[in-house]
Order: sequence, then C-alpha cells, then structure tokens
Amino acid sequence: MNRTQWVYRFGGGDSEGAAEMRNLLGGKGANLAEMSSLGLPVPPGFTITTEVCTAYYDNDRNYPDDLSGQVDAALAFIEETVGAKFGDPDNPLLVSVRSGARASMPGMMDTVLNLGLNDATVEGLAAKGGDARFAWDSYRRFIQMFGDVVLGVDHDNFEEIIDTQKMMKGAALDTDLDADDWKIVASGFMERVEDETGKLFPQDPRDQLWGAITAVFGSWHNDRANIYRRLHGIPESWGTAVNVQAMVFGNMGDDCATGVAFTRDPSTGENAFYGEYLVNAQGEDVVAGIRTPQLLTIAGKEAQGSDLPAMEEVMPTVFGQLDEVRLNLEKHYRDMQDIEFTVQQDKLWMLQTRSGKRTAKAALKIACDMVSEGLITKEEAVSRVDPESLGQLLHPTLDPNSPRDLLTRGLPASPGAASGKVVFSADEAEAEAAKGEAVILVRIETSPEDIHGMHAAQGILTSRGGMTSHAAVVARGMGRPCVSGAGDVRIDYANRKMIVIGREIGAGDRLTIDGGSGEVMAGEVPTLQPELSGDFGTLMGWVDNIRKLHVRTNAETPLDAKTAVDFGAEGIGLCRTEHMFFDADRIIAVREMILASDTAGRRAALEKIHPMQRRDFTELFQIMAGKPVTIRLLDPPLHEFLPHSDDEMQQVADASGVSLEDLRIRAAELAEVNPMLGHRGCRIGVSYPEISEMQARAIFEAAVEVSKTADAPVEPEVMIPLVSDRKEFDLLRERIDAVAAEVFEEAGAEVPYLVGTMIELPRAALRAGEIADGAEFFSFGTNDLTQTTFGLSRDDTAGLLKEYARRGIFEVDPFVSIDVDGVGELVRLAVERGRTTRPGIKLGICGEHGGDPASVHFCAEIGLDYVSCSPYRVPIARLAAAQAALKG
Amino acid sequence: MNRTQWVYRFGGGDSEGAAEMRNLLGGKGANLAEMSSLGLPVPPGFTITTEVCTAYYDNDRNYPDDLSGQVDAALAFIEETVGAKFGDPDNPLLVSVRSGARASMPGMMDTVLNLGLNDATVEGLAAKGGDARFAWDSYRRFIQMFGDVVLGVDHDNFEEIIDTQKMMKGAALDTDLDADDWKIVASGFMERVEDETGKLFPQDPRDQLWGAITAVFGSWHNDRANIYRRLHGIPESWGTAVNVQAMVFGNMGDDCATGVAFTRDPSTGENAFYGEYLVNAQGEDVVAGIRTPQLLTIAGKEAQGSDLPAMEEVMPTVFGQLDEVRLNLEKHYRDMQDIEFTVQQDKLWMLQTRSGKRTAKAALKIACDMVSEGLITKEEAVSRVDPESLGQLLHPTLDPNSPRDLLTRGLPASPGAASGKVVFSADEAEAEAAKGEAVILVRIETSPEDIHGMHAAQGILTSRGGMTSHAAVVARGMGRPCVSGAGDVRIDYANRKMIVIGREIGAGDRLTIDGGSGEVMAGEVPTLQPELSGDFGTLMGWVDNIRKLHVRTNAETPLDAKTAVDFGAEGIGLCRTEHMFFDADRIIAVREMILASDTAGRRAALEKIHPMQRRDFTELFQIMAGKPVTIRLLDPPLHEFLPHSDDEMQQVADASGVSLEDLRIRAAELAEVNPMLGHRGCRIGVSYPEISEMQARAIFEAAVEVSKTADAPVEPEVMIPLVSDRKEFDLLRERIDAVAAEVFEEAGAEVPYLVGTMIELPRAALRAGEIADGAEFFSFGTNDLTQTTFGLSRDDTAGLLKEYARRGIFEVDPFVSIDVDGVGELVRLAVERGRTTRPGIKLGICGEHGGDPASVHFCAEIGLDYVSCSPYRVPIARLAAAQAALKG
Repeated sequence: MNRTQWVYRFGGGDSEGAAEMRNLLGGKGANLAEMSSLGLPVPPGFTITTEVCTAYYDNDRNYPDDLSGQVDAALAFIEETVGAKFGDPDNPLLVSVRSGARASMPGMMDTVLNLGLNDATVEGLAAKGGDARFAWDSYRRFIQMFGDVVLGVDHDNFEEIIDTQKMMKGAALDTDLDADDWKIVASGFMERVEDETGKLFPQDPRDQLWGAITAVFGSWHNDRANIYRRLHGIPESWGTAVNVQAMVFGNMGDDCATGVAFTRDPSTGENAFYGEYLVNAQGEDVVAGIRTPQLLTIAGKEAQGSDLPAMEEVMPTVFGQLDEVRLNLEKHYRDMQDIEFTVQQDKLWMLQTRSGKRTAKAALKIACDMVSEGLITKEEAVSRVDPESLGQLLHPTLDPNSPRDLLTRGLPASPGAASGKVVFSADEAEAEAAKGEAVILVRIETSPEDIHGMHAAQGILTSRGGMTSHAAVVARGMGRPCVSGAGDVRIDYANRKMIVIGREIGAGDRLTIDGGSGEVMAGEVPTLQPELSGDFGTLMGWVDNIRKLHVRTNAETPLDAKTAVDFGAEGIGLCRTEHMFFDADRIIAVREMILASDTAGRRAALEKIHPMQRRDFTELFQIMAGKPVTIRLLDPPLHEFLPHSDDEMQQVADASGVSLEDLRIRAAELAEVNPMLGHRGCRIGVSYPEISEMQARAIFEAAVEVSKTADAPVEPEVMIPLVSDRKEFDLLRERIDAVAAEVFEEAGAEVPYLVGTMIELPRAALRAGEIADGAEFFSFGTNDLTQTTFGLSRDDTAGLLKEYARRGIFEVDPFVSIDVDGVGELVRLAVERGRTTRPGIKLGICGEHGGDPASVHFCAEIGLDYVSCSPYRVPIARLAAAQAALKG
Repeated sequence: MNRTQWVYRFGGGDSEGAAEMRNLLGGKGANLAEMSSLGLPVPPGFTITTEVCTAYYDNDRNYPDDLSGQVDAALAFIEETVGAKFGDPDNPLLVSVRSGARASMPGMMDTVLNLGLNDATVEGLAAKGGDARFAWDSYRRFIQMFGDVVLGVDHDNFEEIIDTQKMMKGAALDTDLDADDWKIVASGFMERVEDETGKLFPQDPRDQLWGAITAVFGSWHNDRANIYRRLHGIPESWGTAVNVQAMVFGNMGDDCATGVAFTRDPSTGENAFYGEYLVNAQGEDVVAGIRTPQLLTIAGKEAQGSDLPAMEEVMPTVFGQLDEVRLNLEKHYRDMQDIEFTVQQDKLWMLQTRSGKRTAKAALKIACDMVSEGLITKEEAVSRVDPESLGQLLHPTLDPNSPRDLLTRGLPASPGAASGKVVFSADEAEAEAAKGEAVILVRIETSPEDIHGMHAAQGILTSRGGMTSHAAVVARGMGRPCVSGAGDVRIDYANRKMIVIGREIGAGDRLTIDGGSGEVMAGEVPTLQPELSGDFGTLMGWVDNIRKLHVRTNAETPLDAKTAVDFGAEGIGLCRTEHMFFDADRIIAVREMILASDTAGRRAALEKIHPMQRRDFTELFQIMAGKPVTIRLLDPPLHEFLPHSDDEMQQVADASGVSLEDLRIRAAELAEVNPMLGHRGCRIGVSYPEISEMQARAIFEAAVEVSKTADAPVEPEVMIPLVSDRKEFDLLRERIDAVAAEVFEEAGAEVPYLVGTMIELPRAALRAGEIADGAEFFSFGTNDLTQTTFGLSRDDTAGLLKEYARRGIFEVDPFVSIDVDGVGELVRLAVERGRTTRPGIKLGICGEHGGDPASVHFCAEIGLDYVSCSPYRVPIARLAAAQAALKG
C-alpha cells in the first residue's frame, strides 16, 4: 500500500499544497499554501487533510496510524522555519489550530490560539518579547479558549474570575489589568478547570496539540455545524481540514498591528484598497468593536472623514508591502480578495485570503472593470455575477443605515422594499392610493379579485401561501414587493387589525416590508431607489452573446409586456388570459357567461367579451412586434370568477336577468373541494367549447389585424392547458384549427400559428410521446407539475415548507427551485418522448422556475429552447442562461 | 406474391373456415364455418374476410383487384350447392348479406336480406314456392331494406306507401294485405327510390350484391359503430367481415318456423333446452313481439303455464334434430350456446351459434355442472365466470318483474338495491333507523362525519362525487348500496327536498336506488335477497387453488373485518385509522387534540384517545387471528375532524377550556384551499410526531397483548402515508421504531413488525428506489395516485368523468379501472425501483382498484404480492386473481 500523505506543509517560501487542492486541504489551508508558493509572507504551518477527518469518523473516531509521525515531522518543520521549539521554556513555539472546510462555514467550528503555552513557556515568552503583560494575557487567553473548546468548561467560569480580579483592583476595563493581574487570573483559570474537569490543565504542548486537533475534527459534528451543513447542502462526507500554524502577534507593541482588507471596495466595486486595522491588537479586537478600527489608506480616511491616522501614514513601509501583496493577489487570483494580515514588530504576515463577498453593484463593476483591465475574460466576468443578486439592482432596497423595528419574517416572495399605510382590502387599497397614499395591502391570501388592490398598493403582505401562491406570482409579475406566508401574522378582518406575536397593527398604521428578505417591520423605513449603471448594460450584452437559451416573459398586461421587453425578453412564454377576465368592465359579462344555464346563454355573454379579448391581444401583439407570443386558453376553474358578496351577486343577477336564488344554486354547483384538481384547464374547453372558440377567434382576428400593419408577422402560439391525454388535446386542437380557418377565410388573410400544450400533470409528462403527435410545442408548467408530483398545494403549505426546510427534509423549496430528482425526471421524460415523436418540437418552461438560476441551469442541461419568467426576473434568467452555457 | 384468400366458403357439409379464425372471419362467419364442418345443416355461403375491410379503407375505399373473381367463384359454389342460380327468373338464388365483426357489435352495422330479387326473379320465386303473397312480400321487404341500407332512402318513405295501401284496402294489419297489395307496394317503392335517388332501382342481382357488400363495409364507419367501438375499446383496425349466405325461409307455410334458443337456461343455469319459436314466421317476427312466441319444450311450456303448443309437440321430428344439434354444439364448444335456426318446409337450418349471455347465478351453475359432466376442467370453469357479476350474488337486486319509476341515473358506486324513506342528514338517518324505518340517506356529498348515518341507512345517494368519493368508498366498505354523482339531483337542505329534473321528492317520500346500475327510482321497488349457492363455494375453492395473488381487505371496523374474512380475505391491507376517530365517544377528544395550541395540549388529548385506539387494534388483531394487518397512520388533514355547527364548537370549547373565539381562529387557520394536497398523511406526523407516536404505541401494545393469548403471532405492518421523499419516511420510521422498542421493553415481550409506506404520489413512485431503503413494504394507494397523476379530484369530477366517457376521451373511469398507460407506468417504475433496492420488498395495492378485475390482472402481471379491496369485493378479487393466474 502506498503511504497516504495526511499532512501538507506551507510557509517558509514554499508549500506542498495549492489553491486547487481545496477539497483536500479546505479553503483556508489551500489558500495559505497558495500564498506561500507565491512567496508571500505566511507564517509556517501545516494542514491535516479532510481525508483524515473522514478516516477518523469512518474508523470510530480513531486516527490513521501514521498520522502522528507525519504531524511530528511537520511540527519539526515549523520549529526549524521559525527558529523556536515547541515546549522550549526559553524559546517557545506557539501555534494556532483552526478548522478549514471545503466550503466556508463561518463561525461554525472551533479554533484554539496561543497553543504551546504552559507554566514554563509563558515565562520564556515574557522574557523573549520583553513584555510580561502580553505573555500572561496570552496565557490566560489560551487557557480560556482551550478550556472552553477542548475541555468543555463553560466560558462563564472564566468571565467570573476576570470580573472578580477587576473588582479587587477597582479596574473598569481588561486593559486596566497588568501582568500580575493576568498571572492571578491564569492561575484562577487553572484551578477552575481542575474543579470542573477533575483533571489538571495539560501542561505538555503535545497533549495540548492533539486535544485541539481532536476538538476541531469533533466540531465537524457539533449541532451548529450539522444544521449549517443541512441548510447549505454541504455533504457530511466532505469533512474539515485542520490548520496548525505558527502564531504571529499583532499585540506585541506599537510596531505591531492587525487588520482585514478587501482588494477593492466591496460595496461600490471601486478599484481602491479598502480595509481597517488596529495598532497593537489581536484579530479578535478588530471584530469585537471595543476600539474603533482605523482605515488603511489616506484616501479612505478622507472619504469617511475619519480623524484617526491611516496605516499608509503610520506604517508606510509595511503598508507599501501590503499594497503590493494586494496587487499580487488580485493578479494571481484574478478576483477581488478578502484578506487578513498581522504586523508583528514591523514584519507583515498574511493569515488568509479568499474571494471577497460584495454587493450586486460591486460585483457588476468589478467584473466589468477586470475585463477592461485585461485581468479576466468576458466569459469569466459573466460567470462571476450571482444572477439572484441582480434583484438588488432592479428594486428599491431598505436604507441599511436606518433603524428597523422587526415584527416577523415571511417568505421573500417578490423582491423590493416598500412602506405604507396598512389596508386590509383591495378596495380600500385602491381608494387610499387614489388619494395619493402609499399603502401596504395585508391579506390572509389574495385571489384574482384582489388584483386591482395589488396594483394600487406599494407592497403586499399575506399570512398564508408559498412562493408560488397567487400573491407571490402576481406580485412578481407586477414587480410589486411581496412577503407571503408570514405565519406569525394573525389577521382579523372584522376588526381591521393584525396581531403579530402579541403586537397589534391596525388599519392606517405604517408598515414596511422587504420582499427580498421576507422581513416585516413596524413603521416606515426609508428606501433607496435602484439605479442601473452602464456596467449592467455592458454585462448583459456579453450575456446575450453567450447564452443559448432564449428568455421570454410571463405577461398579459401591456405594462408588464413593455417592462419585460425593456429587460430583454424575447417573447411572451405565458399570457394568462384569465387575468384579462377580471377587468371591471368585463367581469360582469364573464360572470353572466359562467352562470348561464345553457350554451346559448354562454354564447351571448361571450359575444360581449369577445371584442375586449381581441383588443387585449391586438395590444400585446403590437408591443411584442413580431416576437413570439404564447397565449394560454382560460385555465382556472370558473368559480374563481364568481362574486362572493351579496351586492355583486345582485349586480350579476340584474345584468343577466337570472334570479338571485338560481345564481346561488349555480354558484354552489360550481364550488369545488379541490379546485386545483377540478374542472379547469382544457376541461373547461371540453365542456364549454364555445369559450375556447371565442378565445381562439379573438387571437386569430387580432393576429390578422396586427399583421396587416406590422413589419414583422405575428405568429401566435395557442396553448391548451392541463392536458392529461392526447384525446383532450386533439379535440380542442380540432376546434382551434376550425376557428383559424374561419377567421382566415373571413379576413382573406392568413397568419402562421402553432398549437401546443402545457405539460403540467405527471400523466402529460408520461404520455408526452402521444401528445406530441398533435402538439407543436410543449411549455412545462412546473408550478402545477410540482404540486401534483409532490401532492402539495402551493396555497396551503407555506408553513409546512418552512417546517420541512427546518428539519432538512427539503433542502430548497421545490416551488422556488425545480426538484431535479422528481419533477425533473418527469420533465426529462417528457422532453425525450416528445422529441422522439416530433424531433423539432419547441420546448420551454413557463412555471415560476423559469426565473430561478438553478432551474435555468437544469433547463439548459436538458436542452429546452427557452425559459419564461416574470418581467423583473428576465435579466436574472438571461444571466443564469449565459452561465449555464459557459458551464455546459 | 402469394395470392391472398379473401373469401372463405362454408355449407354443403364442409367449410374453409373454423371457429378459431374469428379474427379473419368475424364471430358469425367463423361459427357458421365451424357448424358446417361439424356436419350441421348450414345454408351454404361465404365470408369476405376482415382483411378486405382493412384493405378497402387503407386503399381509399377500393377493393383488392382479385376480390371480384373470388366472390364470383364462391357464388357459383352456392348456386351449385343450393341448385339455384343468382338472377335466374325460373329458379332464383336469394342471399342474405350480413356484417360480422371479431367482437359482437349488436345492431351497429347493416344487413340486407332476400337479395337477388328483381322484377323477373320475384315471379320465379312465386312460381317455385307456389305462394305469390310470400314472393311479393319478400320483394317489397328487399326493396325497403336495400333502399334504406344501400341507397340511403329514409325508411319513412316506405312506411308511408304501406300505410296508403292499407288505407285504400281498409286493412288494419300488414297481414291483411295480399299478394296484389304487396305487388302495388313494391312498385310504389321502386318509384319512390327513383324519385329520391334519381336512379332506377338496380335490377341486376350482381349490382345488388356489390352494393350490399359495400354498404356493410361502409357501416363499419357509421356514427353508431364508431361510438360503440370507442365505448367498448374495439380497435378501428379490426374491421368487419361480410357474410353472404343462401336465404332460407321460415315463412313459407305451416311446415316452416324460426326460433332462438339457449342450450341451457340462461337465467338459472339449469341444464334444460330453453328457447322460443314461431311457426310460419321470419326471424324478425320473433323479436318484434307482434305474435307471442311459443316455447320449444313441453317442460318449458308447463313451467311457464303457456297454452300454446311446444315445438316438441308440433314438429317432433325437427325438434329432435334440433335437440341433437344442441347436444352436439355444447359438446363441441364446451359452453352454453345461444343459437338461431329456421325450419323451411320441415328442414332444419342453423343460422348462428355463439356463447350465450347468462346471469351470474347461471354462469356459476353452468361452470360447476360442466365440470361435473366432464365437459370442462376446473380451470376453464374458473375462467368462464365474470368476476364483476359476482356482485349480483352478494347483494339484493331489484325484482325484475316490478314496475320502476326511473328518476335519473348516477354512478353505480356500490352494488345492491335498496328502498326507504328519504332523509337529508346523518342524524335524521340514525333517528329514523332507530324507529325501525328503512331510510335512504341523500346528501350532496358525504364526509367522515356522516358515517353513523351511512351505517343506519339502507342506501346512500349523492349528487356529487365519483366512483372513489367518500360516499362510494365508505359505502362499498360497508356493503351499503350507493349511487353517487347523480348530477341531475338538486338538493335543497334548507327546505328538506330534492328536485330531479322538475320532480320534487321531499323528506319522508319513498325512494329506491340500484347501486349496481346507478338507477334512482321514485317509490318503493321490491328487492330480491341474495342467496349464495353451493356452486359459489365450489368455484371459490378452485379459485383459491389457482390464484397466486393474495387478497386482503380494506377494513377498520370489527364488522367489516369479519365480513371480509367470511368472504375469504387473507389479511387487512388497509386499516384507515381515521375512521376510528369519528366515534361519538372520542370525537371530542380528537377535536381537543387538533385545536390544542401546543404540544402539551395535544399530548393531553391524545392520552384520552390512546386506550380507545389500543382497544380498536386489539379487536382487529383478535378477529384477524394471525393474518397480516396493515395499519395506516392518520391520513386526512386535521380540519376534516373539526366541528362545523356552533353547538359542536361550543361542546369542544367546554371540553377543552379554550374560548370559542380562539377555537374559531384555530379552525380558520387549519382550513385549506386544496385539502387533498394539503397538510395530511405523513406531513401530520412530521409536524405533530406525538400523534404518530400515540398510534404506534396503541398498535404495538395491542399486538403484544393479543400475541400473549393468540395461537398465531400478531405481526402488524405500520404504514406511513403520503410519503414523497425518503427523508420523511426515515424521520417517522425512526420514531415508530423508538416507540416499538419502548413498548417491548415495558411489556417484556416483542412482536415482529414491518414499517412501510403507501406509494400514492408520483414523486414517491419516482423515488421508490430510495424510499425502499427504509421501507419494508409498499402499498400502492392508486386512488390518490390517480388523482395526482391526472390532476383530477375524485370529489369534484363525477360530472366531468361522465362527459369524458361520453366523448370517448376516457374509455374507462380511471378511478374504477387502473389507467395502465399513465398511473400504471408509475406503479411499474416503483415496483422495479423498489425491488432493485430491496429484492424481497412486500408489494400490494390498497386503492379501490384492488377490487377491479382488470386492475387485478395488471397487479398480477407486474407481480404484486397482494391486492386489498373492500369486503364485498373480496370474492371478485379472488376470482379475478385466479383468472389472471390462468392467463399468465
């Protein structure tokens, strides 16, 4: 058997590892090795690989036999490089022991610093550095950390001892304690550890080292880490690495410092060194906020109007070295870096580098700038921007500097932030908006009847419903911020108030929602308006050259269609004609049609609707100017259009000349236990072909009319929804073709058209081969397909989905990101079978997944022709499509 | 190329065809050939094959080139055999031209008799038979039939001419017209044909023949035939054959007769010759009912107390020949035959034989008798009985001789007939039943709250809901007759009445339903009680020796379980624990549990339910005596158990000490838009593990207790419903195992048990491979799987399913017989994937399909271990399973 290399060294100007070895060495270890190879000043150390972690757990928490020898050898390498010896009372080597997983898991696992100190070496450290206070402070810090992390002694024990010492000295701050005080504290710590554990604190540095290594590997399975992994989809099998590294100190005097920096401004993306440091301090002091950090550069200091001197002024030489490191790192990694450094007695040490987190705006600017600078290619620039983050650029955001009074959190259903007066009904929303009031519409859930109120409101909050509930889908379409499924909100319509965990908010009170985070806040929080930079246009231009998937939009109103075209939509993938039925000027005719007791009555009412539908389509075709438009025939069960209030019932009765009682009976007959699985989709067309015929007629008449004047020909795609069997499709297609022939005959002109179907039921996916015999395109309706495949109603299960996420049953909400294993298999099957029957069949997706980057990748992988999503997600889908093309 | 034989001859003591050639010759042609080969007296003729039909349609309605020559040769064969010539004025040959498809399509296609008559041959016929009236009557019948069928002249035209002639003669009946009258009529017919078609009536017998052949082939695609084929699943590609046969006449005098007979009594199955005849008559006269048919045998005549002489008396010699034919045919075909014959001038001619239709009782008796007689094997006997027909033997049926006042027809949801007073609520049903009244419970739809009323009622009628609606499923389980989804019934609860197409039926009025046919009748119709003969037991004994599939039952009450065991159930495949939650003595505790605001409150309420659940299981385990029992954990959404009325709400409030308002809010929170896709099944167990734990505890405690005293060990199978992902299953299985371990520890005794799941969601079928990792059995819940695969709610779509059947979109209701193409593919996938992971996994089905013969065949084909169905369908499933084994 080959000897396995369990340990990789770095530092001293060379290393055994490299950045690409992240899987083996973890992110931190791999980058320390890389920096070391680059000749950057990295304190020497070694990484115990993630394979050791795996072997340790596989082997009942025992280490590989030959690990210990490899660690000893690596330790000797550190000793030699640093010129100090582990446990040497005169010249002690101190090390840090840190975790470092493949994926960043900030704060989830354990760290021990200053390891190697004991009652003897602390004296050596004091003598060597000439600073007894520093030595004893370091020792007590080590005991505290080791006691907590390795020995499991609660940190309260240590705080108590420090407080006692401060009291005895009349000291207010830790900094008021001197070397002797820390010596007393350290000895108190020792005793307390003995009391708590029944054992002496380990004095042998090697025992300390193995204790710390084992604690770090053990922390891979602490509760926090397990939950974090589950939430972030990090496999347990990856394991963590352990990094053992010589300590360097930023707190040995005024020629010492410690800091964190970004190689460019992570907020604006500006190409300027951005960071903070503290003189004579340890890393944790920068984070803890006890002292105010100072800025690195003079320019930064001036920009922030800071009085404190910049590092550039205080330590110009070291700053120069650091700035050089910055340029080196950017050039090497070809990305903005987030770095940590320490200056010990005027010597710079690099402790970490990694790709820096950044705002969407910064991501865009950095990507574009780096292309200009020749650092990266356009393709790389495109792959660097998180598509989801574009949402930040398109919608108002909350001012990050304003205080927030957080009430609760719901689902981030439609991005953007909004504030306004609370209203509890759509009518109220409309009335208040007419007076110029900004309002937030609060509903248990919304229905198509609420659409006018949603339009009028600045934002929408619902207590029920998931990411694809009515409220969520419609709000996204309109670009209105929406928080849905806020389960803590109890709405009392009768008393016009809502109660959120004991707090009452009445109608007229101010409320703020953030549809990007799901936060619901009391009162008004100022918002920042979005501005699209030139970088956005530049990047999207590259995106469009790269991507292969077309991007369409789900839209039915002229406004939505225009917005989507402005965002780059290449057509309409889903025009939901039912949304056109709710307009105030036609809903009564629609209701007459539904409540008619026979075909003649229905036809009469349809005659009233027909010219309005034709006008709808004429407008859409004009806006889309030759781009393809997929129009779905009426889909929801008819009862969704029925009035609920007595007044509205009476209105319909008056208009239709039917008695109120008969209307009520008809309405009761139409009611359904499970409307999602009811008399809807193509089933309406089978039962009432005159409805489909009216719609087909309106479509073809509009297409013929617009084609006469337009430059580009109009080619409508008529979509038959909710098909489960080819016979349903064939039956309706026959009627649509007949209407088309009639219209063309009447008009003396023809337009090309396609007839296809939505694949949104498992059976449709399974029988796609047959259905494709008659259908010229498939559009995957993955909202309904997800509902039926999982047997999960998007209107009812927002709470359940949260619970499932919490328990790790669902890693992502399957209504947000397509369930590749289940729903995805059906989609694949349908693609395969559809193409077998009709090789050139046009394939797209028009469920909400069409705007989700992960789902767009899936669509690209299986070779769909286009995705279709709500207008505001079009840029996101374009970028995701480009990234998918680069990946594929 | 080989010459294709398009024409097959029969008659004259030999034939070119045989009974096995039904696909090529059609049923009629094949059996005529077979009888001829047997040496039975069959008028000579020939069959033009179904391949000609197919070729005709494939070749744009043109015949194969060489057909005409083959027809001429076969015609010459008839002429020679009969000793007459087609078109010969002195000795004319007359023929019939009849359709004959592979499957019987009674009355769907066309027939022409007496072909070959023209103005010349009619005289020859008159001269030859010495009966001018007969000849002219035959001629006018031919013109009429040919005119209607071949030339498309509406038959009203002909009726009018006959009526005119009768008026002129002052005749009342056709029989009052003489030879001259018919001559006048015939000539009037000729003129009318010329007027209507613009052409002379064809006088050339060959033109007549080809006209008739083409009309018969053409009738394969008439509307009636197309609809019939669609409804009966007969492929269009089968085509029909055409039979051309020498005419024989039963109406040439008193030495002539015609009749139909069954070789055994089709009603009782008794081994006695049973049939009717008429002297001097044509076949259509027997059917038309103008003259009263006479019985064949003296015994038959006496049994019916008829005054008319039997054939056995009138024509003893010919009767003797016929009786011999009867015995020959039974011996040859080894089944009861339905035959047609004609006696022409004392000579017997056989015109048809086929397997006779029979009642369930007769089928059983004939099958058993024929085994005793050594005619058939036990296996053949088993394959001869239609499983579905056993329903007739197990339930009361309507007295066929009583008048019925049919109101409407719904779905035949649960077999059996029942009469009683109409009641509109479950409470009323219970109250009236307590007074000894027979009642019919009429509801728009039923819910679990109505179960006590369904128990109390004689029968159930609902205006909504399909074959697997709550009413249908529960009624079948109880063996109560039920008609569901009677869409014409409008129920007005407020005024305690129902309106059926204008007729009003109030509470207290009498109503009769037939759950086998779906008929709803006003008033009381007497019913016949079922009696199970010894033949039933005999046949079922053979069945059990043959079948390989086990048959279990869906049952939860002791009564249902006992009934099922009596019917031969080998275990319980589905015990729906929620049905146990509705008992009056526990529903309040159940509601307290549901409405509890926290885990502690739920646990307190569950503590009250626990001993009752344990008692339920103890009883079931005792009744099942070691047979396997699959218990499904609570499945429906909790709101199904909630009270609706204010009184009931108050009751729960009082019992639980929660305010009425809080109860209402909680109830509103639990309400769902699509409960079928809501918070149910294993999702309840994920959210409220304490409920599953209570149920598991009750199961294991009962199992341990019963195992102590029982002979056979109790091995419960705990079933987790509505799983869509292995993580859900694993989570709940872990808890169930923990409870089992606890109970076994407490009791100091263990029982073996299995934990498995229902596969009832498309995703579960797709992910079956993973789920089988933890699940020891799968039970296919094909009700819900059908709902989700089709996106079709069984509660809402009864009307739609009717419409889909009418339009031929669904050939069978997919809730009645499993949809092999869609749902079936998912089941196959799940079987395959489940077995790959766990080769020995136990597989069953517990949807309503488990009692449907076609679905049982499917289950056998894919190798399931068992099917489970409602108690009254257990014998049907056993028989279907045996037939599947014989077929496989």
